[in-house]
Amino acid sequence: DNANQLQAQRDALAEKLQETETRNKDLESQLAELEQRLESSQLEQEAFRRNLKTLLEILDGKIFELTELRDNLAKLIEGS
Amino acid sequence: DNANQLQAQRDALAEKLQETETRNKDLESQLAELEQRLESSQLEQEAFRRNLKTLLEILDGKIFELTELRDNLAKLIEGS
Amino acid sequence: DNANQLQAQRDALAEKLQETETRNKDLESQLAELEQRLESSQLEQEAFRRNLKTLLEILDGKIFELTELRDNLAKLIEGS
Amino acid sequence: DNANQLQAQRDALAEKLQETETRNKDLESQLAELEQRLESSQLEQEAFRRNLKTLLEILDGKIFELTELRDNLAKLIEGS
Repeated sequence: DNANQLQAQRDALAEKLQETETRNKDLESQLAELEQRLESSQLEQEAFRRNLKTLLEILDGKIFELTELRDNLAKLIEGS
Repeated sequence: DNANQLQAQRDALAEKLQETETRNKDLESQLAELEQRLESSQLEQEAFRRNLKTLLEILDGKIFELTELRDNLAKLIEGS
Repeated sequence: DNANQLQAQRDALAEKLQETETRNKDLESQLAELEQRLESSQLEQEAFRRNLKTLLEILDGKIFELTELRDNLAKLIEGS
Repeated sequence: DNANQLQAQRDALAEKLQETETRNKDLESQLAELEQRLESSQLEQEAFRRNLKTLLEILDGKIFELTELRDNLAKLIEGS
């Protein structure tokens, strides 16, 4: 009868809601994990880029010093 | 009475399920987007590292050529 | 007597002239040899300087290529 | 007569000797000057070579430092 049918519908909906909420929690934790990974990947990339910038500055210094050496060699050749 | 109460419970559960499924879809699309970003970030990083490796090989070549120049200068000084 | 004295003076002068001319020839050959050494030393120095100029040009090229590499590294870091 | 002839010979020889000794002095001073130039040229060349050796050592240092930079870049690429 009608009361039994309504009860069956209610129970089926409650079960379905339960599953959907479980799936929801799972998705939320996946999302949190992925955000964590993306953030730590960005932090690594920034640290990497900072290290590269330091190497770039050292390379600038070496090129400057080679240019000084070059100028001293040129003066030596001209003056000899 | 009982039938009215069951119907109210069923309708409340149906509405709650609707909301939870909507939230689910939203989470799934957020997750897909984040996976996309993480993947394209990894592809960029790999391309970046390949470019750096190319620069490293060029630097190797330059150091080799400077060493040849250094040896030629040493020979010139010794032979003079 | 006077004729004998004149003859002795003449002979002494002739001998002295001989020695002086011998010494002269010796000095001229020393001078020629030294001029030769100075000239070949100058030719060597010029060849040496030309070789140094070639090395200087190669060094210029290497500094230019390192600067290109530096610029490519800078662009890579900025673009990442 | 004989005495006049001998006197003329003696005087000619005395004059010739004078000229030869003057030429001698000139050659000796030329020789001394050339030896001076050769010696100072050698001193200059030695100073030049010492300066070149100093530049060679500086170049060695720069190549060493570029190699360190290269190794640090390689480690950075491998570690990323």
